[in-house]
Amino acid sequence: MERYDIAVIGTGPAGLEAAITAKVRNKSVLLIGGKGSSDKVSKAHTIQNYLGLPDVAGADMAKAFLDHATGMGIEITEDKVNAVYSMGQYFAIQCHNGDYEASSVIIAAGMTTMKPFPGEMENLGRGVSYCATCDAALYKGKTAIILAYSEEDEPEAEFLAERADTVYYLPQYEYNGNLSGNIKVTCDVKPGTIEMKDGAAVLTTDGDIFSADGIFILRQQIAPSQLVPGLKMDGNHVEVDRQMNTNIKGLFACGDITGTPYQYIKAAGEGNVAALSAVSYLNELKKAQN
Amino acid sequence: MERYDIAVIGTGPAGLEAAITAKVRNKSVLLIGGKGSSDKVSKAHTIQNYLGLPDVAGADMAKAFLDHATGMGIEITEDKVNAVYSMGQYFAIQCHNGDYEASSVIIAAGMTTMKPFPGEMENLGRGVSYCATCDAALYKGKTAIILAYSEEDEPEAEFLAERADTVYYLPQYEYNGNLSGNIKVTCDVKPGTIEMKDGAAVLTTDGDIFSADGIFILRQQIAPSQLVPGLKMDGNHVEVDRQMNTNIKGLFACGDITGTPYQYIKAAGEGNVAALSAVSYLNELKKAQN
Repeated sequence: MERYDIAVIGTGPAGLEAAITAKVRNKSVLLIGGKGSSDKVSKAHTIQNYLGLPDVAGADMAKAFLDHATGMGIEITEDKVNAVYSMGQYFAIQCHNGDYEASSVIIAAGMTTMKPFPGEMENLGRGVSYCATCDAALYKGKTAIILAYSEEDEPEAEFLAERADTVYYLPQYEYNGNLSGNIKVTCDVKPGTIEMKDGAAVLTTDGDIFSADGIFILRQQIAPSQLVPGLKMDGNHVEVDRQMNTNIKGLFACGDITGTPYQYIKAAGEGNVAALSAVSYLNELKKAQN
Repeated sequence: MERYDIAVIGTGPAGLEAAITAKVRNKSVLLIGGKGSSDKVSKAHTIQNYLGLPDVAGADMAKAFLDHATGMGIEITEDKVNAVYSMGQYFAIQCHNGDYEASSVIIAAGMTTMKPFPGEMENLGRGVSYCATCDAALYKGKTAIILAYSEEDEPEAEFLAERADTVYYLPQYEYNGNLSGNIKVTCDVKPGTIEMKDGAAVLTTDGDIFSADGIFILRQQIAPSQLVPGLKMDGNHVEVDRQMNTNIKGLFACGDITGTPYQYIKAAGEGNVAALSAVSYLNELKKAQN
């Protein structure tokens, strides 16, 4: 498997700046995220205080950022990261569409304001999971519930349904799909609590109660502490120092995920620092290996 | 005297970003520095990694930055800061051309690579000074040496010469001026050490020895620890936390002065954080006063 120098997770200002700085420093970069840059950027109204781009509309800024990165030959790998594991000398990055390896990782995944459902964290890894394609093999002849947050989750449901007996698909977005067969779609369901009862995962909603062997929650973002086992948090944010080091050697964080203020130029500045810290780390790693 | 909400010292990326963010937050801003933005920026070759401005020449970037600030109605007060004093509820800012007051201060003065002369620090405040106009009144009938670093120092020499008996003017730049009268200009002199001998300040150079009642060193930049008495340093850099707080309440620092990497986007990002921290501080201050 190709081992990248630096994997950057997130395509908002922090992630894009980290990627271009890493590229300028001649490192191989895996940039994982959405091609639309950050939703938060492109949906923003006029931004007045990104120095050098006065009075710019969010969509124009997002385009300027993406053009900058693609103009430097940086490709975006459209995928969702399920987990990042430190393997000592490198990191294993488990995504929905495949696995990757990188010598260092920069987390620039932004802030999710979504709170876990009652029972979600307690049952994570035993009934609750964030990646249907990753666990599909375990669901032969079984049943599963999918809480889906975007139409991009529909192929994931289809993939799971090839193995599973029945998939209960509960779209939390405006559903216009045509999932059918053993995929039972129920729209306009508001999830409540998650429990494990007699080996079954039970989801109580504002209407029905759904019961299955497992529940998949396909949010756009996963809480960073779930994404990277052992990652030290400071409240809802990843704890970093001024060089954007986390408590895990070789793993850096930048942008909104590291704390307020949630500002584009702050995020970009931190992306730059994180990338240069990763470059220093790679140099150290190389020396240690020689 | 008008008391500004926020005084920003420095017109590089950090200072300009701090000023525009403060302005967006509706604060009155005093921005002190050179109108040419930072020399380091305008003289830089192509910059590849300032997200949103791909492959931009230093001069074009400096222009984009300045245009952004002036387009928002921010004026630059062209002056050199001699000292910043914390007065409890506000700061007194002593400049070469006048004094100012502000409720909070953001230091974004960049990094000076110039080392003090042997004897300079030891004799600061007793024979050695950084502002001729500030101390002119003390020099009636006395003599002074001026180490000058730019033609902008020439009016300062003239001002001092109106009081002093004799001013020895030693330009450390390409001198094309016409200082005369009791201003004795000696070009191409390389300063060596400074000593106090029998109440006189003695400057030994590679050629002559100059002796006078005092020596003025008019560098473009003053070491931050000299600029702000009591400011805590971390080596050559101002010590800050992730919110750009220094050890002095209400005083913030950002940009190169806070440490590496010396990168434009990092500096701008920190300027944004410093400004928002200053805004929070002003809110606290207001609450405490009510």
